[in-house]
Amino acid sequence: MKALVYHGPNKKSWEEKPKPNITHPADAIVKIVKTTICGTDLHILKGDVPEVVDGRILGHEGVGVIEEVGASVGNFKKGDHVLISCITSCGKCSYCKQGMYSHCENGGWILGHLIDGTQAEYVRIPYADNSLYLIPPGADEEALVMLSDILPTGFECGVLNGQIKPGDTVAIVGSGPVGLAALLTAQFYSPAEIIMIDLDDNRLAVAKTFGATQTVNSRQENAIKVVMELTGNKGVDAAIEAVGIPATFELCEQIIAPGGRIANIGVHGKSAELHLETLWSRNISITTRLVDTVTVPMLLRTVQSHKLKPNQLITHHFKLSEVVKAYDTFQHADREKALKVIMTNQ
Amino acid sequence: MKALVYHGPNKKSWEEKPKPNITHPADAIVKIVKTTICGTDLHILKGDVPEVVDGRILGHEGVGVIEEVGASVGNFKKGDHVLISCITSCGKCSYCKQGMYSHCENGGWILGHLIDGTQAEYVRIPYADNSLYLIPPGADEEALVMLSDILPTGFECGVLNGQIKPGDTVAIVGSGPVGLAALLTAQFYSPAEIIMIDLDDNRLAVAKTFGATQTVNSRQENAIKVVMELTGNKGVDAAIEAVGIPATFELCEQIIAPGGRIANIGVHGKSAELHLETLWSRNISITTRLVDTVTVPMLLRTVQSHKLKPNQLITHHFKLSEVVKAYDTFQHADREKALKVIMTNQ
Amino acid sequence: MKALVYHGPNKKSWEEKPKPNITHPADAIVKIVKTTICGTDLHILKGDVPEVVDGRILGHEGVGVIEEVGASVGNFKKGDHVLISCITSCGKCSYCKQGMYSHCENGGWILGHLIDGTQAEYVRIPYADNSLYLIPPGADEEALVMLSDILPTGFECGVLNGQIKPGDTVAIVGSGPVGLAALLTAQFYSPAEIIMIDLDDNRLAVAKTFGATQTVNSRQENAIKVVMELTGNKGVDAAIEAVGIPATFELCEQIIAPGGRIANIGVHGKSAELHLETLWSRNISITTRLVDTVTVPMLLRTVQSHKLKPNQLITHHFKLSEVVKAYDTFQHADREKALKVIMTNQ
Amino acid sequence: MKALVYHGPNKKSWEEKPKPNITHPADAIVKIVKTTICGTDLHILKGDVPEVVDGRILGHEGVGVIEEVGASVGNFKKGDHVLISCITSCGKCSYCKQGMYSHCENGGWILGHLIDGTQAEYVRIPYADNSLYLIPPGADEEALVMLSDILPTGFECGVLNGQIKPGDTVAIVGSGPVGLAALLTAQFYSPAEIIMIDLDDNRLAVAKTFGATQTVNSRQENAIKVVMELTGNKGVDAAIEAVGIPATFELCEQIIAPGGRIANIGVHGKSAELHLETLWSRNISITTRLVDTVTVPMLLRTVQSHKLKPNQLITHHFKLSEVVKAYDTFQHADREKALKVIMTNQ
Repeated sequence: MKALVYHGPNKKSWEEKPKPNITHPADAIVKIVKTTICGTDLHILKGDVPEVVDGRILGHEGVGVIEEVGASVGNFKKGDHVLISCITSCGKCSYCKQGMYSHCENGGWILGHLIDGTQAEYVRIPYADNSLYLIPPGADEEALVMLSDILPTGFECGVLNGQIKPGDTVAIVGSGPVGLAALLTAQFYSPAEIIMIDLDDNRLAVAKTFGATQTVNSRQENAIKVVMELTGNKGVDAAIEAVGIPATFELCEQIIAPGGRIANIGVHGKSAELHLETLWSRNISITTRLVDTVTVPMLLRTVQSHKLKPNQLITHHFKLSEVVKAYDTFQHADREKALKVIMTNQ
Repeated sequence: MKALVYHGPNKKSWEEKPKPNITHPADAIVKIVKTTICGTDLHILKGDVPEVVDGRILGHEGVGVIEEVGASVGNFKKGDHVLISCITSCGKCSYCKQGMYSHCENGGWILGHLIDGTQAEYVRIPYADNSLYLIPPGADEEALVMLSDILPTGFECGVLNGQIKPGDTVAIVGSGPVGLAALLTAQFYSPAEIIMIDLDDNRLAVAKTFGATQTVNSRQENAIKVVMELTGNKGVDAAIEAVGIPATFELCEQIIAPGGRIANIGVHGKSAELHLETLWSRNISITTRLVDTVTVPMLLRTVQSHKLKPNQLITHHFKLSEVVKAYDTFQHADREKALKVIMTNQ
Repeated sequence: MKALVYHGPNKKSWEEKPKPNITHPADAIVKIVKTTICGTDLHILKGDVPEVVDGRILGHEGVGVIEEVGASVGNFKKGDHVLISCITSCGKCSYCKQGMYSHCENGGWILGHLIDGTQAEYVRIPYADNSLYLIPPGADEEALVMLSDILPTGFECGVLNGQIKPGDTVAIVGSGPVGLAALLTAQFYSPAEIIMIDLDDNRLAVAKTFGATQTVNSRQENAIKVVMELTGNKGVDAAIEAVGIPATFELCEQIIAPGGRIANIGVHGKSAELHLETLWSRNISITTRLVDTVTVPMLLRTVQSHKLKPNQLITHHFKLSEVVKAYDTFQHADREKALKVIMTNQ
Repeated sequence: MKALVYHGPNKKSWEEKPKPNITHPADAIVKIVKTTICGTDLHILKGDVPEVVDGRILGHEGVGVIEEVGASVGNFKKGDHVLISCITSCGKCSYCKQGMYSHCENGGWILGHLIDGTQAEYVRIPYADNSLYLIPPGADEEALVMLSDILPTGFECGVLNGQIKPGDTVAIVGSGPVGLAALLTAQFYSPAEIIMIDLDDNRLAVAKTFGATQTVNSRQENAIKVVMELTGNKGVDAAIEAVGIPATFELCEQIIAPGGRIANIGVHGKSAELHLETLWSRNISITTRLVDTVTVPMLLRTVQSHKLKPNQLITHHFKLSEVVKAYDTFQHADREKALKVIMTNQ
């Protein structure tokens, strides 16, 4: 089969690889129908994720069709259409039993990382019963690719941890794909205001069409000042960090209201300064989370009932065999006004 | 009447002051029976709390007897024995309605800070209906002085925010009075292990008698290493910070298990380093809180039912007129092996 | 002043009464601008609520303008526009401190019940600071009359107790004003399906325009069968009872899924049969609640942000002096296709 | 091997049966070390549970040693000492993913019910990874038999659903083994009062030694009157029903305080009368639950840390081959003063 293979920093190629086989009774082999590229894939390509070895097939998102299942798989059979979670869950370690699949002792984020991934014609999914989700008949399968990673990430790390409630004032710092996923799913809870903060006017314009009530270009305006004015000098009930650098996290510290919640989504490479000298008495919470994808069934129901329209996040389409071109587009997201790109295995 | 009056950094005196009067229909005048000294009072004396002006009567803890009530006070009458909360709550601003009395728009921590306090023969308590608690007949009133501040502080900021559950492994960093208050109230929830970390062997010995299952002198041992060994390299489910300096907060970051909670109690004067580069993916929460004293009724019930024995925290007794001597003892807590000192108005 | 006065079963008149005065420092006198009629008022008129004595002014809903405040009132001043809660809260008893205003030891539902009410030119509101809410400038005051009782009732007793979540399947039994209030506010949480069950096609048609995804006329169809078919034989995640008779409560028992919540709103006059022989093992919860109106601030924010449009519930308008005619319309709600009627004091 | 086999109502025998085999890759075969008898086993023997067919081996509790595991079992290996959960959980259906193992689509309560059980020398456990728990070295294995069913039942259905908090007043109706299990585990949360209600003085005396603060023999005293007197006429914060008949459930309705929780544990054969005419306005919750055994890991930690001493519930010991005699003792629990009986496979 063909697959996108990593060969060390800045080296990848679309090349022939052996089709995967069942190696454990809980495995399934899935024929990829559609897949996408994640910001994390770009990090890997830069060499930032040293666990990824030469020869690894990239990708941890996608939808497909079951090709074969191991002897203990009970939820799926050949021909079933399935959504692949970016998180592999064994369902039987202490973390999985608590719904913290991200820390699964036998899985977690392994696809396209520690084992071969989804940017390929076929992929082996360990613990298939707990790591795949049946796609309901008639669903828009392309839209569901957004449920592999980005939507549960925005929802679990940002919205659930931010405890968004009806009437809340929310700031989302970062209007990239993950920030926008938080924006879309925050609206499940009917907050009064969602203030979107970014450096890019185009992304802020997108946020406006996705339901942001206010946008702030923090290159042009003092974001703290604007938020304080909008909130009667109180700050926001929830601040969602969707960038991953100290400056944006520290901005959240400065705009949070007493009693508020700072929900971090960003993947950080450095420490940030925590201003306990002011925050110690402000009754706030700060949360971090690697997506567990435990809300995928809930998100599937919101898609089926048209409360969530994930295809809003899709801007570009390619054939799977054009994956290298797709990476180029995604790597120049600003120039290309790209959010998520879809690659179809034809 | 006599009162302990602040006269600028390092200056205080026990002197004559006018007896307070009712100035608002919601006020009560309380004759102090017993009061105590808080670490915060020492900070004020050092000049660290500039809002405290020359002439201010210090103190925000105590029990007493109602001397007089304003026209709208409904819960109390002359002669009632009452517990004074360190937090004044108006009961009618948006924060009070949410149980966040610490941020009361008309009160909060004002006693011995923005208005005259309890280290006096009489004190005026604004919003008496919401800021005093009736002492049940037969109660040990001296023990209840610990419910003015220290026990709700340890319980709300440490134990409730730390979400201690049966079977949990908990670390408390700091074995001073507040850390010990967290230790006592953490046991309401039957955690499996409570590891107490401090630099002082005497305080750790006290912690052991108060229910700590393990103690670590971090001057003599590598606390991280010890905690990791005790927890099978997982870290603790909850880490309670009860010191207020960067090093102890950062220690909590290093010993917290995935999915764990860091509950800050300490009053911090400086920022700490938040290691998001490791914590971003660990599904943790960090909380801060100024005590709301919203749990005082619950704590009163636990004292009445002998689940909590607050007088364990009391080590020294003085007459109220000996308050200067009492400060001296409390300021040399290590030398005196002092936890909390009680002063009785005789 | 003029007021609607109860004179025993089936007797009421619009007559002259003394204008109320401040009798306690926490009182306010409110000049009524707009008020409405509640189903409870009809129960009182039938003689079903014996605590209501001859001479009582009816009504517990409305908006108005502050005419005068007592000496301890701090949140309001003459001229402020206010929303009147149907529940009077003292803010200082143990129930109020827990947010259970309905059981306030000094208030609760007393307006138009134990003290004179709002269907009058003026009303005295005890504990004004905790029982009135400031109307933001520019708000549609008429719409806010719906926040006195009906919307918090549907929301707190039905939606919050029903723990509605994104993707949930919800049944609301009863499509009268309260059931519709639950329908409107359930949508704050983006459930996938809301099935509305009633005997009246007109009300079900209204429900459809208010956002119900399915309607069932249980006179014409077997509601259990329909719900089971719609839910793949599982039942609903939440069943909200908004009628108040045994048959509708027992219907909820039969359509609830394992793990589901039955949230009672209805005012019941008789016991119902609880089928523990089937329910004991089904992991369900049943809740009851008298509205606390603790969510009025949240609901105000949802109205201000256009997430909730309370005027959808208003079908008829009268002058306050036409209150007798307004009662006639409301008493024949089916014939008149009436939901809520507004009376304006001109 | 030898096993206790059901042969229709009132017929059982200790007889030769084939040793079980692995039939699915997720199975394990466990050699029983110790087992016990449940009240449910007596119901089966009376013929009350018609799904149990002639030839079925009884029993759903026990500890043992792994004899053999299927190809997909990852948590256990031959020789491991394990605790058997009374609930079989597949870990991969939608109920298991929500922690509602009792409603597992592939398991649930099947041992000694729909498949052969634990009153035998060997038992086959389906979905072993999710249905067995590793016994820590050095643990008192006999005590852990109480974690198969009775302790999680009392804890999950009674204590967790009853939301017991520090300072609460709790009534437990029924002082049999399950009520006593609730009594033991309620103390994890430091309630102020636990009032135990039963008809049997011996059981009440046991309850007293297990931590009940009050006992009421409802044959001799009016339980409602006593509870109301003890609670200042308020009622209890939580009422736990541990009998399973209408009278005891309805007693809970009469002693519950406003805002309280009624947590049903009892297995009911008939409906009860739900007095909505009084309860509709009292802000209460009623819960039902079939034990999920989802708290077994937490309970194991409380046993390891000596917060829970399950062997308090064990009164009698037999050899496994004396199982018929053990049933006789357990069937005459009153006469024998029996709580739980242990049978050891020697």
